[in-house]
Amino acid sequence: MKRFLMFSLLVCLMLLLIPGMASAADGISTASNAVAIDTVWTLIAAFLVFIMQAGFAMVEAGFTRAKNAANIIMKNVMDFVSGTLVFWLVGFGLAFGVSTNGLFGSTGFMINDGFDHLGLGIPLMAFVLFQTMFCATAATIVSGAMAERTKFAAYFAYSIVISGLIYPVVVHWVWGGGWLAQLGFVDFAGSTVVHSLGGWAGLVGAKILGPRVGKYSSDGKSHAIPGHNLTLGALGVFLLWFGWFGFNPGSTISGTTPDIAAIAMTTNLSAAAGAFAAMIYSWVRHGKPDVSLTLNGALGGLVGITAGTASVSPGGALIIGLIAGVITLLAVEIIDKVFKIDDPVGAVAVHGMSGVWGTLAVGLFATDGGLFYGGGLAMFEVQAIGVIAVLAWTLTTTVVLFKAIDIVIGLRVTEEEEVAGLDIGEHAIEAYGDFMLRAKVPTVE
Amino acid sequence: MKRFLMFSLLVCLMLLLIPGMASAADGISTASNAVAIDTVWTLIAAFLVFIMQAGFAMVEAGFTRAKNAANIIMKNVMDFVSGTLVFWLVGFGLAFGVSTNGLFGSTGFMINDGFDHLGLGIPLMAFVLFQTMFCATAATIVSGAMAERTKFAAYFAYSIVISGLIYPVVVHWVWGGGWLAQLGFVDFAGSTVVHSLGGWAGLVGAKILGPRVGKYSSDGKSHAIPGHNLTLGALGVFLLWFGWFGFNPGSTISGTTPDIAAIAMTTNLSAAAGAFAAMIYSWVRHGKPDVSLTLNGALGGLVGITAGTASVSPGGALIIGLIAGVITLLAVEIIDKVFKIDDPVGAVAVHGMSGVWGTLAVGLFATDGGLFYGGGLAMFEVQAIGVIAVLAWTLTTTVVLFKAIDIVIGLRVTEEEEVAGLDIGEHAIEAYGDFMLRAKVPTVE
Amino acid sequence: MKRFLMFSLLVCLMLLLIPGMASAADGISTASNAVAIDTVWTLIAAFLVFIMQAGFAMVEAGFTRAKNAANIIMKNVMDFVSGTLVFWLVGFGLAFGVSTNGLFGSTGFMINDGFDHLGLGIPLMAFVLFQTMFCATAATIVSGAMAERTKFAAYFAYSIVISGLIYPVVVHWVWGGGWLAQLGFVDFAGSTVVHSLGGWAGLVGAKILGPRVGKYSSDGKSHAIPGHNLTLGALGVFLLWFGWFGFNPGSTISGTTPDIAAIAMTTNLSAAAGAFAAMIYSWVRHGKPDVSLTLNGALGGLVGITAGTASVSPGGALIIGLIAGVITLLAVEIIDKVFKIDDPVGAVAVHGMSGVWGTLAVGLFATDGGLFYGGGLAMFEVQAIGVIAVLAWTLTTTVVLFKAIDIVIGLRVTEEEEVAGLDIGEHAIEAYGDFMLRAKVPTVE
Repeated sequence: MKRFLMFSLLVCLMLLLIPGMASAADGISTASNAVAIDTVWTLIAAFLVFIMQAGFAMVEAGFTRAKNAANIIMKNVMDFVSGTLVFWLVGFGLAFGVSTNGLFGSTGFMINDGFDHLGLGIPLMAFVLFQTMFCATAATIVSGAMAERTKFAAYFAYSIVISGLIYPVVVHWVWGGGWLAQLGFVDFAGSTVVHSLGGWAGLVGAKILGPRVGKYSSDGKSHAIPGHNLTLGALGVFLLWFGWFGFNPGSTISGTTPDIAAIAMTTNLSAAAGAFAAMIYSWVRHGKPDVSLTLNGALGGLVGITAGTASVSPGGALIIGLIAGVITLLAVEIIDKVFKIDDPVGAVAVHGMSGVWGTLAVGLFATDGGLFYGGGLAMFEVQAIGVIAVLAWTLTTTVVLFKAIDIVIGLRVTEEEEVAGLDIGEHAIEAYGDFMLRAKVPTVE
Repeated sequence: MKRFLMFSLLVCLMLLLIPGMASAADGISTASNAVAIDTVWTLIAAFLVFIMQAGFAMVEAGFTRAKNAANIIMKNVMDFVSGTLVFWLVGFGLAFGVSTNGLFGSTGFMINDGFDHLGLGIPLMAFVLFQTMFCATAATIVSGAMAERTKFAAYFAYSIVISGLIYPVVVHWVWGGGWLAQLGFVDFAGSTVVHSLGGWAGLVGAKILGPRVGKYSSDGKSHAIPGHNLTLGALGVFLLWFGWFGFNPGSTISGTTPDIAAIAMTTNLSAAAGAFAAMIYSWVRHGKPDVSLTLNGALGGLVGITAGTASVSPGGALIIGLIAGVITLLAVEIIDKVFKIDDPVGAVAVHGMSGVWGTLAVGLFATDGGLFYGGGLAMFEVQAIGVIAVLAWTLTTTVVLFKAIDIVIGLRVTEEEEVAGLDIGEHAIEAYGDFMLRAKVPTVE
Repeated sequence: MKRFLMFSLLVCLMLLLIPGMASAADGISTASNAVAIDTVWTLIAAFLVFIMQAGFAMVEAGFTRAKNAANIIMKNVMDFVSGTLVFWLVGFGLAFGVSTNGLFGSTGFMINDGFDHLGLGIPLMAFVLFQTMFCATAATIVSGAMAERTKFAAYFAYSIVISGLIYPVVVHWVWGGGWLAQLGFVDFAGSTVVHSLGGWAGLVGAKILGPRVGKYSSDGKSHAIPGHNLTLGALGVFLLWFGWFGFNPGSTISGTTPDIAAIAMTTNLSAAAGAFAAMIYSWVRHGKPDVSLTLNGALGGLVGITAGTASVSPGGALIIGLIAGVITLLAVEIIDKVFKIDDPVGAVAVHGMSGVWGTLAVGLFATDGGLFYGGGLAMFEVQAIGVIAVLAWTLTTTVVLFKAIDIVIGLRVTEEEEVAGLDIGEHAIEAYGDFMLRAKVPTVE
């Protein structure tokens, strides 16, 4: 009898210690509930990141001309499509497969299911979907920088290579257990991995393409080419901001960690601070509060906080955002006026430069290890190494890529097509057929 | 003493075996947490399906002319309104009430609360809301097919009948335990129940209405009538895609099932594949990658995967989507050029035809029971029966409905009103009062 | 031995009674899961409320003229920015700090973390973020009422004061344990706290500003000034409706309460009923179903249900919504034609008047305590006290505020600037640079 009692007690205690066994009868347990919360969170975050595609499309269309709107839309749809297909076919395996010397993953996704080493707490497919959305974000950033003059076929080819090779390798370095991860590089949701990478690719693309017709006079003076729909551009920024609440807090891949609250808070504070700083800066610099610069400041604040969103305090996020807003506007000017690279929507400044700032800022503001919290320069140095490594990799690969595309397909449309608009030339359609458009003669001197 | 011990042990073990009793003291338990996860998931999915209404409104407005934009908007708002009110008053009871010979539910929703037989794991209202969103989706599909020439009052009357009678009966057949459910018909999230039904109703409406002024010349030649805002149309597609992440994964009515991850993944893959196939097809067929056809291909991919999203592999989803993209485009052409039915936004092709394909595809690609997985033709046959049954029911009822509306209210606006635009004629407003519109004389030969 | 057994049993039973201890080993427990569900729910609800900012921006831009669209956008972005920053700096502490005689909270948020008295079940930051979104909603309502003639700097200054002082004090009264809460005042999600407050502030602003040039002839006749983009306005309404699913159900601050389902349902029913009533009313009154009035009716229905969403039955919600739709339209007319206050988008009617109705309606329709459920007039009286108190506070403070701004900054732009458009005057930009706009001479008599 005593034995029976003791045995029963033992069973009883064991059951208590194994989460989820309590109600294993119907498959519901504390552990399975936790997995469900994490899965639901990751999926909803992925859906929110998806809507960033609409945000990018609206921002890029709104901030460029009506005659190229259909082309911009098509690029934004199709880079998501190639992101989805190619990342699933090969990208995910390169990014998260078993590491080959910390350089790339060697598990082909379609070939086998060898992703047990990830030790995911959620179904593999939820993680794949979330990462797919990130891949498509990196790819689509380039669209804006190369807007209004790139052949559609060339852009589509580019989007396949960045989704299948260039981006996944960097993901492996940082999030797939690669060499930067091993160094201690911190890029929580991708200031560098996603945004700077996209920004650098856009920089290379814009540089190789050359400026739009009428952008620079023969004396080198830069002419502003206003967008055709600021309302739509602003809607895009709101959608991006909205999606960022999936981008950053979702990068926990866990809804059971209380960190998601602080991450959402730092994300929002930095975005607001970026917009505020940009508004003030533009007001002081140009005499009036500039709408599109303010919107770019908000995006700069979002990019800037993305690396450190889980490591910094709300106050830290505020400062990171303020500086990101100013850096974004300075970078817009420098890229345009000093380097004379024509980036129609400021993508290189917003994603590239603010991404650098955000990544370095982790080394300064991280409450655990940052310079301003007594952590010394060690963390900052690792962050700088990561920034430089991704810069070097992206510049190198995209120079080769765009040069190759230029040779094989041709990167740029003809001047006639550009002047008439890519909607007609590339897609035989007008985006706004019922509206009378102003006849605009581009300034070619 | 021993008795006491044994009794205690018994209580202890019982507590362990009854999920949720563990911490019943404060009302929180493993079981109640699972219910909460399922409720939260279902509600958020319902919210996502709601935003599809905005998606439909933007797609339909964007792909039609500026002079009818306010009317399209009004139709999309009001079919959601009648869907909400009528489905709550009578539709839900018809759909999910106690079955009468498998044909319809006989529990009036406002009359009593007799829905215990559903055995829902979540609050009834969460399920009602989710189903309301689906009802409104079925209703709103028709709006596009009948665009630019239907009287608003007629459309509003139609929306009441489809929400209160035509749609709920089919729901009962398939999801309410009716005769198709008993046959084993699989339509997970409604390729047939929602989309084909909406498509067939649109087909009947468009056929009875006749083509828009200027659509076909006297020699039968079809003339394209371009939409007025491709950017908005694309935004609509993004919103629909976004909402589909509620439509399909939400149809589990459960966030605790790990299946939601694979469902979200197959949904996304099929959408991307549909867009890809449509882009390539349009490129080859028309010489350039067509924007609106590509967008319709994405929607076709989404409709196509909706029936089998929980039954097929990612690879299966890819193939279903590719074929759906091509079928959508073929159907657009055949409906327009062969049948000469004027469906301004391609709703019949996207929802009707791709819905058929998706439903049949379950019989081919279901990993459990599909033809290609060794399951023979049994499943395919049942799927075909479901497709035909819903086709027959919808054609019959909507022919009667639209004919009756035509007699009582009049289905079509006058030619003068149509040429001037329905915004003025039906609502005494212009959608874009500040903009100069091109004077367009419709081709009447 | 027996002692050991009994001790073991005791431990065992204790473990069973303490939620979360069961699997404390890895930090996951029934209790922590419940916290996670509540946190995830609150955060997602906050994200949904965020997208209401895009909704307000689109509604306000769409329902006003193209020449002021960039300015409207900028106001909507920046009031969210100041809401975020100022509410975090001081507003939250005023609203939710330890109460000083029920009048205001005295815990400065940046000063210390003294919010333990709130007894939150979720991380503080999740609650702060959710409340931040509400603050920004209250602030942004005013933008529409003061549209097309307010200096941007004046509006920005206003948004700081409402976010940092006027709104937080009322929040303290009702949700922060203040005197109205102690009286038993029920305003679940803010018909009064958020919407009426915003409406009254807009009323004062619009009154002090005076009407737009051309709005009223010298004989006092009111002239409609149509918006420039009804499609965008409708998109805004859809986004607001979507966001309201966070606004109302999220105000539980808990995903584990089954109430969220009924709240989502009453919210949706009232919105639909509001749109329906407004459509019928406008049809009867003006001969045609009016699009913008119907859209405002939907918003009126949403505002109307916000106070009682958790207290009334679906049938009650239906009636509240129907009446809210009619009240909104009546109020639009009375404010315009009787009081001759120029509120370009009807914000005072939608948010102010419908908010009053919704708040009072709790006293009538609350299934626990409402007049129609045998509860007598006690509840209604408390609701009326709350309505009047917030009206008095908001009118007083905003009169002082707008007068002070008028003296220091100047509230209104010059007539020349107004006629030319605020986009040029305030921001040196055109929102639609590629489009030809109709030359519109405002009617000044």
